[in-house]
Amino acid sequence: MIETITVSTDGQGLYEFTAEVARVVAGSSVAEGLCTLFVRHTSASLTIQENADPSARRDLEAWLQRLVPENDPLYTHTSEGPDDMPAHVKAALTATSLGIPIFDAKLALGTWQGVYLWEHRRRPHRRQVVAHVAD
Amino acid sequence: MIETITVSTDGQGLYEFTAEVARVVAGSSVAEGLCTLFVRHTSASLTIQENADPSARRDLEAWLQRLVPENDPLYTHTSEGPDDMPAHVKAALTATSLGIPIFDAKLALGTWQGVYLWEHRRRPHRRQVVAHVAD
Amino acid sequence: MIETITVSTDGQGLYEFTAEVARVVAGSSVAEGLCTLFVRHTSASLTIQENADPSARRDLEAWLQRLVPENDPLYTHTSEGPDDMPAHVKAALTATSLGIPIFDAKLALGTWQGVYLWEHRRRPHRRQVVAHVAD
Repeated sequence: MIETITVSTDGQGLYEFTAEVARVVAGSSVAEGLCTLFVRHTSASLTIQENADPSARRDLEAWLQRLVPENDPLYTHTSEGPDDMPAHVKAALTATSLGIPIFDAKLALGTWQGVYLWEHRRRPHRRQVVAHVAD
Repeated sequence: MIETITVSTDGQGLYEFTAEVARVVAGSSVAEGLCTLFVRHTSASLTIQENADPSARRDLEAWLQRLVPENDPLYTHTSEGPDDMPAHVKAALTATSLGIPIFDAKLALGTWQGVYLWEHRRRPHRRQVVAHVAD
Repeated sequence: MIETITVSTDGQGLYEFTAEVARVVAGSSVAEGLCTLFVRHTSASLTIQENADPSARRDLEAWLQRLVPENDPLYTHTSEGPDDMPAHVKAALTATSLGIPIFDAKLALGTWQGVYLWEHRRRPHRRQVVAHVAD
């Protein structure tokens, strides 16, 4: 079963959509299987991170911003704005797809794990994540 | 088929568990299919690396330690210890899930590939990796 | 269904093989499902990146070369050449496997997404990518 989840973003950072993925899994009637997520963009990515303390996500975003700054003299691909090439680098360093097992008709996430869309561009976007569920 | 593999760790570094994954695959009676691994933690990750020379794994660990040091003034999420926030960053830069095809009833790994749990915290942990096997 | 795709490389950089993956999917008669790609090497990796402007790929390669330079005094694993240990680090920071949903008998890639083998070694290689397709 395939379903597309849309995640609306409003600037760089992590946007949780665990509940939307859980809804897709619940609607699939799969009790034991695999849910694969795939982001259809090259300037946003996926990550599984701590869902408890928001400071962990803020630090994660700040750390990656510092590692991959804008206006790096190395960049030649600059026509789409100063946040475009850093977005491609960040996407390459993080995940485009994730496979999460389903057990007991639920995502087999750890207690502290949440599923996040990682937006790497500044302007608002509507990001598409394709979810595939099978047993 | 779903099975949980426990990997006991005793400090930061790479812990091979290829044999445990191979056992799960052998017990599944799947001759051609896919084995997906998923780590249920946000301060440990998965990687496939060279299984021959241990110096490659030590250098890999040392390199990541230097890229993501402890006590970085950037961090605000510090209440869980100096190795906690670096662990989240390292997990985000490496893999939370891996999909390995099964061929001829065996993992289709390359000759030099081993499957590793990458522990990013200093204290001993019992890490859970969920394995999903299907054809 | 399992099929091995060979990607011939001639130095470091990104080599597109979207068409080869699409051919495997077309030959599988799967209308809705999942295509998982797995690279059988520890000094090459996979990435999904922008397929429009080649400058984005060149910048990506240059950025990663700078982050993970050769002849780093940290390395002890040097017997296989100066580009070997950097190749392992780069592979660990990028993807070994990718899961791409299949919809309408086609890869559910976004408009600007291409599938690439990322070669991290200087000499020519014939790289094997195992593709698993299932519904």
